[in-house]
Amino acid sequence: MVTIKDVARLSGVSISTVSRVINDSKPVSPEIRKKVLEVIDETGYRPNDVARSLVTRRSYLIGVIVNDLSNTYVAEMVKGVEEVGKMYNYDILLCSSYYDKEAQMNHLSLLNRKQAEGIILIGYRFDEEIVEKVNEYNKNSIYFTRDIKNDKIDHVKIDSHAASYEMTKYLINEGHKKIAFISDFEDRGSYEQDKIDGYKEALKENELDYSRVFVAGGRRYNFGYDIAHEVVAEIENITAVFCTNDELAIGLINYLFDNGYKVPDDVSVVGYGNYKESQYVRPTLTTISEPYYDIGAVSIRTLIKKIEGDKDQPSVVELPFSFIKRDSVKKRD
Amino acid sequence: MVTIKDVARLSGVSISTVSRVINDSKPVSPEIRKKVLEVIDETGYRPNDVARSLVTRRSYLIGVIVNDLSNTYVAEMVKGVEEVGKMYNYDILLCSSYYDKEAQMNHLSLLNRKQAEGIILIGYRFDEEIVEKVNEYNKNSIYFTRDIKNDKIDHVKIDSHAASYEMTKYLINEGHKKIAFISDFEDRGSYEQDKIDGYKEALKENELDYSRVFVAGGRRYNFGYDIAHEVVAEIENITAVFCTNDELAIGLINYLFDNGYKVPDDVSVVGYGNYKESQYVRPTLTTISEPYYDIGAVSIRTLIKKIEGDKDQPSVVELPFSFIKRDSVKKRD
Repeated sequence: MVTIKDVARLSGVSISTVSRVINDSKPVSPEIRKKVLEVIDETGYRPNDVARSLVTRRSYLIGVIVNDLSNTYVAEMVKGVEEVGKMYNYDILLCSSYYDKEAQMNHLSLLNRKQAEGIILIGYRFDEEIVEKVNEYNKNSIYFTRDIKNDKIDHVKIDSHAASYEMTKYLINEGHKKIAFISDFEDRGSYEQDKIDGYKEALKENELDYSRVFVAGGRRYNFGYDIAHEVVAEIENITAVFCTNDELAIGLINYLFDNGYKVPDDVSVVGYGNYKESQYVRPTLTTISEPYYDIGAVSIRTLIKKIEGDKDQPSVVELPFSFIKRDSVKKRD
Repeated sequence: MVTIKDVARLSGVSISTVSRVINDSKPVSPEIRKKVLEVIDETGYRPNDVARSLVTRRSYLIGVIVNDLSNTYVAEMVKGVEEVGKMYNYDILLCSSYYDKEAQMNHLSLLNRKQAEGIILIGYRFDEEIVEKVNEYNKNSIYFTRDIKNDKIDHVKIDSHAASYEMTKYLINEGHKKIAFISDFEDRGSYEQDKIDGYKEALKENELDYSRVFVAGGRRYNFGYDIAHEVVAEIENITAVFCTNDELAIGLINYLFDNGYKVPDDVSVVGYGNYKESQYVRPTLTTISEPYYDIGAVSIRTLIKKIEGDKDQPSVVELPFSFIKRDSVKKRD
């Protein structure tokens, strides 16, 4: 195998000059640069990243910790991270924690040992201890996304309060007076609480007395299906159900279908997230769309600018949501 | 920062002895081991992976190249890879190519520079040139999954011919005599061709004349929705449609629903893959399940055993499929 020594010898220059050419780190005269590049080309020399990062003290590595890639919106965010990371020539080390805090802590250790220059955490909730660990390792280069109401950590956010308010307002404008909400967990993250507050604010502003929050106990399809019998028990009192994510909404719609109820004739259902499945279900689901790809792209771009010394990057970036009107809501008189 | 030199000095041993303790590479007397570990503990020394891999010449890194993580079955395979990789203390570097050959080639270069000890390629098709590149880099430690009919490369496979035959046989046993098949691309991979051959073999064995392969032009939901009008144009001749994957089947079912046709009363529809969405659609989809998690888990376990010098690992591992009966098929007389 050709080494950097061979390239130096054949070019008639020192190893550090070859290193400068490869890493573009310090000026080299055009003639010498040309000679070195010719030798690299002729010999087929490939710089070794492991050796190189010892010399440059830079890993060009960014770690991404996610909970579960099989959430399609997470995969979308990761796509944004990967594509923009690639544009800037950073490598991405992707770690999945499957909601396990110990796994998250282990991933952080790994990323530290690998000398990752920045870390992106994608998840609907992360522990305070994780935030501290991240800060301990990488003070100047951390980035979080979603569900972080925390000035200890930079983040990209969506105004979920406003999104939830807008969705509830839409249902009210369609004539709905008895609107229930299906939430995920009893022990709520800030992101979830914002949604419930937005829902309640819209009800209050419109002087609607009925307010009811069901707790599904999870965020996946089956929890929506399983909580549905509680909704059905109250169906006489409810004209619309706002679910905190699309999977819960699809589970609810399917339970209603399987038990002879018609959506939206008997009850309207809306979701949140615009997951791809929200177009597959019948009726198609009215929902809120978050710009998942952009969340990933903006996160890593801001992070890289910070890594590279830009002091003017904001610590919080807010991205816009949008309202997606489909067929799961019926107007009431 | 504490270095390995400091640990050696404070323990009163050489750097190479400290390295032996850390890497568990060669025997060290119990007393010295204890002393070194105490010093590591007291000083908070953290071994640096970058420096370590130069010493041990081992990266404990396995690269995984996928096309698109937003396919939920790909995410399932990656989960199998990650969990088993972690059990064996290997790190996983996950790269997405989004079906772009140049990106695949670049990822291979990256993994080579990072001294990855093995590579797993997950995808429904990979180019011959990619296979050659992989062999050039890592002769003894490569692993492919799915759709590789190739003795140049080790792989995990599913007998898609048998699966497709069994599904077609099921439809025939339910009384269907006019069964169409929806395929993905005109230019077929071996995996797809096996499915079509299985379908045709079952028809032939049962002396059924009707045989029709529609080509959707893609593998995602919208292609199933878009090809559906061609199926509807032939609907008088067709009693069942076998789709090469679940997304195409769900697209077809939704088009039929949106245009007033009833599944399975007017036409039966079956899929392949048992994607999670196959449970969301109404009627729920009869399909073939592949053990995605196991494909990932078995791939990396076999790969690691090879990396670690086990010469007895098979070059091809076949895993079983299973038949999932749900509500999208109606018996015909």
